[in-house]
Amino acid sequence: MMYSPEQLSDLEQIRTLKHRYFRCIDTANIAELGELFTPDVTIDYRGGHYRVSLSGRENLLEFLANSFHSDALAMHHGHMPEIRLTGADSASGTWYLEDVFISRTDRTRVSGSAIYTDRYLRCADGWRIAHSEYDRIIELVDRLSDDVTISSHYLRDVGRRPEQRSDMSRFISWNVSTR
Amino acid sequence: MMYSPEQLSDLEQIRTLKHRYFRCIDTANIAELGELFTPDVTIDYRGGHYRVSLSGRENLLEFLANSFHSDALAMHHGHMPEIRLTGADSASGTWYLEDVFISRTDRTRVSGSAIYTDRYLRCADGWRIAHSEYDRIIELVDRLSDDVTISSHYLRDVGRRPEQRSDMSRFISWNVSTR
Amino acid sequence: MMYSPEQLSDLEQIRTLKHRYFRCIDTANIAELGELFTPDVTIDYRGGHYRVSLSGRENLLEFLANSFHSDALAMHHGHMPEIRLTGADSASGTWYLEDVFISRTDRTRVSGSAIYTDRYLRCADGWRIAHSEYDRIIELVDRLSDDVTISSHYLRDVGRRPEQRSDMSRFISWNVSTR
Repeated sequence: MMYSPEQLSDLEQIRTLKHRYFRCIDTANIAELGELFTPDVTIDYRGGHYRVSLSGRENLLEFLANSFHSDALAMHHGHMPEIRLTGADSASGTWYLEDVFISRTDRTRVSGSAIYTDRYLRCADGWRIAHSEYDRIIELVDRLSDDVTISSHYLRDVGRRPEQRSDMSRFISWNVSTR
Repeated sequence: MMYSPEQLSDLEQIRTLKHRYFRCIDTANIAELGELFTPDVTIDYRGGHYRVSLSGRENLLEFLANSFHSDALAMHHGHMPEIRLTGADSASGTWYLEDVFISRTDRTRVSGSAIYTDRYLRCADGWRIAHSEYDRIIELVDRLSDDVTISSHYLRDVGRRPEQRSDMSRFISWNVSTR
Repeated sequence: MMYSPEQLSDLEQIRTLKHRYFRCIDTANIAELGELFTPDVTIDYRGGHYRVSLSGRENLLEFLANSFHSDALAMHHGHMPEIRLTGADSASGTWYLEDVFISRTDRTRVSGSAIYTDRYLRCADGWRIAHSEYDRIIELVDRLSDDVTISSHYLRDVGRRPEQRSDMSRFISWNVSTR
């Protein structure tokens, strides 16, 4: 079994698509995020103390714009893709996430890892994310100690300020039980 | 010097092989790990306070099943491969690891980085890992403070429970001196 | 739009070039770093409390040899490349960094993320880095607590010792204000 040049090109484009996704969420680049999904994209993120379920590109963009807000310090790095071409214009992908999410207001920090299972479709203007879900592998929650100085915070300038945010509770269920 | 399409296909397959390795250790997927190594695989992991040396796929699988147990929170991310095709059916690879390993029982955390040097062989059913070794670049050991909540822990459900584990001391030497 | 085999080969070589850069800085491999840049390379690293601006390969190598010294514990991982071929022999690249830099002497730790924008040129002996700049996304500064044990420290043996270091202040401006 060998990949053809056409398949290698597809793998390259699909990887770059997901790379753009991670860069754009952490920089609240909602305009570019709008180019990455199919209109009927579906999401199911199963975290340790939350679950995000939604469908539709407009809902997803609104959810991301509210999540990566001006009080958030966010790092989401997707690693080690395993892409499978499942048809001429479809593919699936496994990625391994490392993430850190700090709320500046209350200095809560959530950090951990997760494994994504995605589906991609080739559309008229290139590959798009059609479905994305993940399960947590590890997740830790703590508070930044007082001796930690925040010396760079990109989203403070570009993320939505409190008065710009809207209620996202219809997309998130919170699970207060921890194990 | 240019890579041929055949070589690019080999590089893609070797990368994915190692990606599967990292995903499978952190999720204790011993069945899939069994597909990734040559029967006579050799291992030499030189950590800061441990060294793991062993040979043979069965020994390696037993070592991994015992290491990624139900008390372990593990994240092993292999980055930035430099793959060299050394023959028609052989290759070597350099990878740069980031890892976190937490023992839930005593809340000890080992975190750091290491550089791998691997060898790969093309077998009847695809590329396999024939040798893997690493040297530590940085390694820190501490204990999780009491205010850290563990909110996801995948291995708790799928890793070997205490009564299922066996003695691995023949594969590990402990170096209590730290520098 | 599809990548040709020649383009895929270029992408592979450019990725590996940058992978070598990250491995070599954290291991103070100045000899190999000398192979990675054009003679007139330009650098602009905009951190949270520092900015590094310089030009010329010799200046860059001297800066790196002084920065990755025997008191430094360093981890620099470049992720999720987005490479654009901008001409027959030129390319640009976006990378997403995670880094940790600990000074062993005063136990200061700087950790965070940044987004690189690079330019690459194909030279007689392969692709080289012609320009590299980054902006911070998040940056945290704290001190290692006393209960953290350093159990591996590669640069302690290979990095420049205090008496070997030279003054780099002409390349760095420090910004003491944090936000």
